[in-house]
Amino acid sequence: MGHFKVNEKDLFFILKDQLNYGDLCKLERYKELDEETLDMLVSEAVRFATGQLAPLQEIGEKWGVIFDNGRVRCAPEFREAFKIYGENGWIAAARDPEYGGQGFPHMMRIVINDMMYGAAQSFNMAPSLTHGAAHLIERFGNEELTSQFVLKMYEGQWAGTMALTESNAGSNLAAIKTTAYPEGNYFKIKGSKTFISWGDHDLTSNIIHLLLARIQGAPEGIKGISLFVVPKMRVNLDGSIGDPNDVICTAVEKKLGLHASPTCTLNFGENDDCIGYLCGDENKGLAHMFQMMNQARINSGVSGMSLASTAYQNALTYAKTRIQGSDLAGRKPGYVPIIDHPDVRRMLLWMKAAVDGMRSMIYTGAFWSDLTLELPEGKEKQHYQSLVDFITPIIKAYCSHIGFRVCETAIQCLGGYGYCKEYYLEQYLRDVKILSLYEGTNGIQSMDLLGRKMNMNGGAPFKAFMTEIECFCLKNMDNRVFAEQIKALSDVLKKVVRVVGEMSNRAKTDLLQWASYTYPALLCFGDVTMAWRLLDMALIAKNKMDAGKKNDFLTGKLMQAAYYVETTLPLTLGRLDTCVRNGREVESMPEEAF
Amino acid sequence: MGHFKVNEKDLFFILKDQLNYGDLCKLERYKELDEETLDMLVSEAVRFATGQLAPLQEIGEKWGVIFDNGRVRCAPEFREAFKIYGENGWIAAARDPEYGGQGFPHMMRIVINDMMYGAAQSFNMAPSLTHGAAHLIERFGNEELTSQFVLKMYEGQWAGTMALTESNAGSNLAAIKTTAYPEGNYFKIKGSKTFISWGDHDLTSNIIHLLLARIQGAPEGIKGISLFVVPKMRVNLDGSIGDPNDVICTAVEKKLGLHASPTCTLNFGENDDCIGYLCGDENKGLAHMFQMMNQARINSGVSGMSLASTAYQNALTYAKTRIQGSDLAGRKPGYVPIIDHPDVRRMLLWMKAAVDGMRSMIYTGAFWSDLTLELPEGKEKQHYQSLVDFITPIIKAYCSHIGFRVCETAIQCLGGYGYCKEYYLEQYLRDVKILSLYEGTNGIQSMDLLGRKMNMNGGAPFKAFMTEIECFCLKNMDNRVFAEQIKALSDVLKKVVRVVGEMSNRAKTDLLQWASYTYPALLCFGDVTMAWRLLDMALIAKNKMDAGKKNDFLTGKLMQAAYYVETTLPLTLGRLDTCVRNGREVESMPEEAF
Repeated sequence: MGHFKVNEKDLFFILKDQLNYGDLCKLERYKELDEETLDMLVSEAVRFATGQLAPLQEIGEKWGVIFDNGRVRCAPEFREAFKIYGENGWIAAARDPEYGGQGFPHMMRIVINDMMYGAAQSFNMAPSLTHGAAHLIERFGNEELTSQFVLKMYEGQWAGTMALTESNAGSNLAAIKTTAYPEGNYFKIKGSKTFISWGDHDLTSNIIHLLLARIQGAPEGIKGISLFVVPKMRVNLDGSIGDPNDVICTAVEKKLGLHASPTCTLNFGENDDCIGYLCGDENKGLAHMFQMMNQARINSGVSGMSLASTAYQNALTYAKTRIQGSDLAGRKPGYVPIIDHPDVRRMLLWMKAAVDGMRSMIYTGAFWSDLTLELPEGKEKQHYQSLVDFITPIIKAYCSHIGFRVCETAIQCLGGYGYCKEYYLEQYLRDVKILSLYEGTNGIQSMDLLGRKMNMNGGAPFKAFMTEIECFCLKNMDNRVFAEQIKALSDVLKKVVRVVGEMSNRAKTDLLQWASYTYPALLCFGDVTMAWRLLDMALIAKNKMDAGKKNDFLTGKLMQAAYYVETTLPLTLGRLDTCVRNGREVESMPEEAF
Repeated sequence: MGHFKVNEKDLFFILKDQLNYGDLCKLERYKELDEETLDMLVSEAVRFATGQLAPLQEIGEKWGVIFDNGRVRCAPEFREAFKIYGENGWIAAARDPEYGGQGFPHMMRIVINDMMYGAAQSFNMAPSLTHGAAHLIERFGNEELTSQFVLKMYEGQWAGTMALTESNAGSNLAAIKTTAYPEGNYFKIKGSKTFISWGDHDLTSNIIHLLLARIQGAPEGIKGISLFVVPKMRVNLDGSIGDPNDVICTAVEKKLGLHASPTCTLNFGENDDCIGYLCGDENKGLAHMFQMMNQARINSGVSGMSLASTAYQNALTYAKTRIQGSDLAGRKPGYVPIIDHPDVRRMLLWMKAAVDGMRSMIYTGAFWSDLTLELPEGKEKQHYQSLVDFITPIIKAYCSHIGFRVCETAIQCLGGYGYCKEYYLEQYLRDVKILSLYEGTNGIQSMDLLGRKMNMNGGAPFKAFMTEIECFCLKNMDNRVFAEQIKALSDVLKKVVRVVGEMSNRAKTDLLQWASYTYPALLCFGDVTMAWRLLDMALIAKNKMDAGKKNDFLTGKLMQAAYYVETTLPLTLGRLDTCVRNGREVESMPEEAF
């Protein structure tokens, strides 16, 4: 079961050397904490993921999901793991002690998820959704809802879901038809939801659905959607479990991957007996839900990166031990481990850089989130909020896009064995594919980035983001070793500004042409972010080396940055050009010509 | 079962308008044929694939492969289909009537495989391997072997395999350990082979393995490898089936995809009772086997393209019928089919161009093969041989690389539904991944292209290939509509020449650095080939339109070329630069730094 592997040194290099995450303990809210405590939490997360979760990856794949008689049964080991996960405080690590949390900074939840997803993605979706659902209640629910549900969910006694999608309302939530009929101080819910991850299961005695529905008579479209808390089992006044709440699982999807994660169709109120509680303001459901959706988007990026990380580590281990073929340059006699073959090394180096760059991108975003939440009102807080707004769709789409390619490349390293179940990698490829699809497809992310985010607050998110990277280039343009790569990044940034400007103009006059190129443009933003984060790590490593600390680990940081930046940015430049080409084929292709 | 779809008009446009494949009937060998007969064969192949094979895709996936008691059992429908496939002459369509073939040009086998793989990849591997194995015997076996085996295999009574790989001899066949001990006019075979596709099954009463082994006392390495015919069941003098030949299937791989294709470990001579017959010359086995391996490489490219084709057609159908979201430009009221959304159209147009370009690339290579085989000795024949030599690794690696991306993109078009088994697309993604791995990984193809093929016959293959594309550019540089794209292709070609020259110089002094960039260089060759084939089709379509024939189909050819060329070549230019960068990270990265 040793397939989960992570290089702790890589984690701490980003957290400590690159981000100085100990600084978070200077924030008023975290003043009781210190860096050492954060470090311990990280190491503990690695240990927990390795010891408790990693075995679930294979167990879950074998067991899958058993669905009969309207009930979903999961592997017994999952139930046990969920219990310990909750008891050990992992669900609510970053939540307030007032609600049973451990009070760690928000970014620690991301670091924890990195480990947990990397060890067992299917499983970790359950506590992650539970956290998101409980956090929504904590934030928007009234005291009654909060006291009834939040603690039990944070402790892992009950689980949670987000129930948004309907069969004709997926990407387009405006089409939601599920209806809530007022009845005293609660509502009767009627409707059907589909694609509900962990919508039914036997890990916990209750499942709390955070559900979007229309209150009878509400306006059409997204302006008439409200958020409801709908438990699977009713809860008595004393907090004990009552009668079933007329929530019935009618189908479980058969999928490419995530075989241990039940994706359910749920019927609410088939017998007119499903009670729901309004959470937050009437008709503000979508806005409320965005808290959970943004977290879910970030978590999609985290999953993509962490599955890629595990896949890379597995390919690396294989490449070091698999003997095949002779050394091309005749450096060693006989047959050699395949890590000696240049094309295998090429793949490994690219994967290493991709994983480390994505992890740095994600942790950086998470660090910003804490500043956004905890800094006093003012310009600085606003700056970090802008950065978080901008990087969210990049993290979601780019890390799922590249994560998939890393898993593919890891298989390629193993040759024919990569195709065999024996080596686990094929499961990573299957599992990782979901991340570009759910929580808003990557295409939708690109419209969010190049549209909504670009125009938000007079362009503040874009400006804040570019400022960060431009300042990095300015500060380091004379660097002895990386001047060339920093110049390259700076040149790409200039082109980004020009291209994005042209695209924004187009958006005003020619929306269809603009939307035909938002996805490649998003990828360019991803490339730029990666180059920046990788070069930043390389400069830090170089400084350490200049100070006399020389080792292979630091050399790796230098080499991965040089390689990724120099083999990626030339293509980014090309792709940027394509985003503003004049050809209108996408838009004007006759339907019958496809 | 309607998931197999192909646009016959696309096929015929390449075959008739682009390649004038009827010209093959002017060759001495095919003088009895005419274009109409070839057309009929193509349409018949579409019909057979649709009617007989398409249902097997789902049946095979459900049944999988049952392995017990050392025997593999396949879905009964597979047995029936194999029989009809053989009886209808599909296995030997392009073989000589003397051996039971239909006497069609070689390229028809490729067109047939395009349809058959696109309808049911797992299944079609069986007749395709049978053809390759029988063809080897026909070419290199003595009369006894030929008369005993070839006809029965071409007719589909018996099946065939290629048995090369051993657990420590995959990419490196020099390490083969299976041994042949001389015993009268045959050999006793002893050894174990792994990853043998269709190595055991119950489709036919006998399976004929074309096996590589070392004759006892032969030299080490590839110079001591001979080719043997090893039947699963011995064959009596009268041609009837005799006793078992001590070939035992000991394991069947569990794989990411190709679930209906048994990938077997076979033990030969565990009880010292396995008889094999030398096929061709002693110690020339690898050279002989290359005939089959080259065919298998081409077929990998064909599979990659045809799975991509089917995936695209499925995504297209979905996009036309799935209603979701409003029209961005407000052209239509209410909710619209998702083909109206620009990002979906972007994916569809890219897939269409990718599939059509790959198909044209492959058919062009197949057309060249016939000229290579049938032209009288001389410069022209040599030219086509050079072209075939050069394009083979490009077809294998590029079409499997891009085919995978098309299948991924097709899933993306469907959003969350693409992840569900219900829509078949997830199976295409799983099945198509094998093609970059087997028959020599794509990395190995890139070494073959940039190494062996570049240096063959004083560089003749490279020169022949570049001449073809350069002449195309010269001839059409003044084209009214596509001048810009042709100029772009021409510019890329110039850079290719420079980069490849630099790489060749490096190969002499710095083999490891050279080998670190052969794969990206191969991709560039693929891009160039695609641009050429797509532009060629576009010019033909334009001529037709100028002659008064206007329709959406022709418009599509123009638009796909403009889009693919203009969104691909700018990235190709960037990638070419990376192939000759000076950074030596791949080569000099310390192992502990990964």
